[in-house]
Amino acid sequence: MNERALLRQMFDAAIEAADPDHVIPGYLPAPPRGRTVVVGAGKAAASMARAVEAHWPADRPLSGLVVTRYGHGVGPLPRIEVVEASHPVPDAAGQQAAARILALVQGLGPDDLVLCLISGGGSALLSLPGDGVTLADKQAINRALLRSGAGIHDMNCVRKHLSAIKGGRLAAAAAPAPMVTLVISDVPGDDPSVIASGPTVPDATTLADASAVLARFGIEIPAAIRTRLADPAAETPKPGDAAFLNTVTHVIATPQTSLEAAAAVARAAGVTPLILGDAIEGEAADVGRVMAGIARQVSVHHQPAPPPCVLISGGETTVTVRGHGRGGRNVEFLLSTAIELAGRPGVFVLAGDTDGVDGAEEVAGAIVTPDTLARASAQGISARARLTDNDGHGFFEALGDQVVTGPTLTNVNDFRAVLIRPS
Amino acid sequence: MNERALLRQMFDAAIEAADPDHVIPGYLPAPPRGRTVVVGAGKAAASMARAVEAHWPADRPLSGLVVTRYGHGVGPLPRIEVVEASHPVPDAAGQQAAARILALVQGLGPDDLVLCLISGGGSALLSLPGDGVTLADKQAINRALLRSGAGIHDMNCVRKHLSAIKGGRLAAAAAPAPMVTLVISDVPGDDPSVIASGPTVPDATTLADASAVLARFGIEIPAAIRTRLADPAAETPKPGDAAFLNTVTHVIATPQTSLEAAAAVARAAGVTPLILGDAIEGEAADVGRVMAGIARQVSVHHQPAPPPCVLISGGETTVTVRGHGRGGRNVEFLLSTAIELAGRPGVFVLAGDTDGVDGAEEVAGAIVTPDTLARASAQGISARARLTDNDGHGFFEALGDQVVTGPTLTNVNDFRAVLIRPS
Repeated sequence: MNERALLRQMFDAAIEAADPDHVIPGYLPAPPRGRTVVVGAGKAAASMARAVEAHWPADRPLSGLVVTRYGHGVGPLPRIEVVEASHPVPDAAGQQAAARILALVQGLGPDDLVLCLISGGGSALLSLPGDGVTLADKQAINRALLRSGAGIHDMNCVRKHLSAIKGGRLAAAAAPAPMVTLVISDVPGDDPSVIASGPTVPDATTLADASAVLARFGIEIPAAIRTRLADPAAETPKPGDAAFLNTVTHVIATPQTSLEAAAAVARAAGVTPLILGDAIEGEAADVGRVMAGIARQVSVHHQPAPPPCVLISGGETTVTVRGHGRGGRNVEFLLSTAIELAGRPGVFVLAGDTDGVDGAEEVAGAIVTPDTLARASAQGISARARLTDNDGHGFFEALGDQVVTGPTLTNVNDFRAVLIRPS
Repeated sequence: MNERALLRQMFDAAIEAADPDHVIPGYLPAPPRGRTVVVGAGKAAASMARAVEAHWPADRPLSGLVVTRYGHGVGPLPRIEVVEASHPVPDAAGQQAAARILALVQGLGPDDLVLCLISGGGSALLSLPGDGVTLADKQAINRALLRSGAGIHDMNCVRKHLSAIKGGRLAAAAAPAPMVTLVISDVPGDDPSVIASGPTVPDATTLADASAVLARFGIEIPAAIRTRLADPAAETPKPGDAAFLNTVTHVIATPQTSLEAAAAVARAAGVTPLILGDAIEGEAADVGRVMAGIARQVSVHHQPAPPPCVLISGGETTVTVRGHGRGGRNVEFLLSTAIELAGRPGVFVLAGDTDGVDGAEEVAGAIVTPDTLARASAQGISARARLTDNDGHGFFEALGDQVVTGPTLTNVNDFRAVLIRPS
């Protein structure tokens, strides 16, 4: 068995399963009698738009506008305009794009179609303050929420009620035109009302909920926002509203579908896949120690399954930065895993970000082998010192063990695979 | 299914599997023609000695001395003296006991028997500086090693070469008397040369290794220690030495045997046990997040096994103390797990220290149920705030969900079980 090659094939399969070119054709609706307007936002918006164009009948009208992150464009498309904007902190480019998107979908009729392409990052990219709210007010609230430790659901509840486009308002603007939303998920649970704050799906939370969140976390509320949260006209559209009579949402790629694709590659190679979680969170170095501990159990006690076996997981770990190295969640995980494995024979690990970018480097991740620490030592490199310095990319670059895919233009979060060979 | 009861039965089974009274009888050698001297050290030393006495023929001679941690005694035994000493920082009581133990085993012959009872903590309790080394020198080196980030193998290598009793020297002192060592393991790998620094087993490391460790970690070496490490007479006995011709070592209880016992209880209740690791390490709160993530995968995707299923693990997590609460590794793990599970239906968790003491409390651990957070909220208690304050014991005491076993007088480290019911 060539373990490096197998792990890389699994990672490539995970990415391919989330590649818009691969998944969009199966979900494209039939062209309507009238016009089709494509809108959307997210890190995968450009490649999703490109896939739609590639599979849309050349003789049927198609136009629109999507917004993606700076550097995530795919060059100009013949029919759909692609705008780049700032993420994670919204900027004017994103605001202008959001306003234009709202305008584009208005005035359409029942014979037209709005095709909405949503992926991770769309919340920041589709940022448009609601009536009476200034960008400065919204930013202040956002910063306070981030500092407060509020969860994603609480934050989204507030954001939706301060926005002119989130929380189903884009669907309300497009009605009565039919709307099909295609979603690539990078969040635990794959809930379309969470991804990009659900611009096209009903919002079950209320103005009162939003006020309660701000109160609960003791966040100071500017006067204009207090006024908006007291205005019934600022309420988001609710489940059952007429706005959603003719809308349908498909989640076309998720962390889980990518993990399943990688599992199929392992199975075909005679290796038992154990999918441990599509939404594993925690400090990257500690997640690495736990995965190494489970790998040890497979190796020594043949539990929870005998080798050959591969532990697969997704989700998004975090790194508490203390050093000055070139780091990323996945290489931090790998450095820690390598240290904890301490050269254990027969254990090989790949971790990478499915968007091709781990941290700030154009490197997806890396591979750990049983001789990783020994090869580093031979070069005078201490894995422990590099971990302390959060220098995962520096470490694996020196070893020649980086995994480089280039920007994949999709994102279903992290991918980790720990392969245990019989010893 | 009564989930609380099942989890508690599993925990009790894990403890029973490591109970000296339960496991020692099967490993007791036949009484020799001559005298039997019992020696030993560790947190379980007193209960191991008690079990030996209980199962030793009343008409055959039995005497000896074991040393355990303050508070881990079992009251005076009729035949074996039990001494208490300090752990983890050695004190004079431990030193005197070590010297008396060395004296006790000397002068015995081939018809006699030394029965040595070893368990976790024995390294600190059996501390006796070798010739030319002062306790102050040894303590300074120990502190420097702890600060250096050296691993347990490197630390033990140094300790064995500075000691008069560790690293096989107790066996060398007892030869030519036959020696049987019974070991309860609380360390990953269950290596008898690691547990209590292996007083009765050969040491494969050398004086040169010990010097190399001190050099590698840049530790300043007092003159007396430099002299000792250069003295060939200070070398530890090696594999194959005559001292070990008549010695045998049985590891009679391990984290793994306890996890297996708990798994059997689950299996009998129709719940699939998945043993994920007998040596899981990492920050307790992050280990909790990972276990919650795996539980989520079982619940949502029926992977790596369908519910009902229970994720079992052992090992020793760590807590980086930042707050001022009453904490422990296991309640910290539980608090974090409860937050990450966020009330997920059908998931129940027990974690506890098999010695009955989590942190500084006479409480083994606690139980998390799907309504843990809601019940806390109803009392005005924030799980997140309590986690920040490292106040796991305070949190679970308020809920009435503590698990109290009393001191178990054994120790195979932590026990964690995450039970997922079909939902």
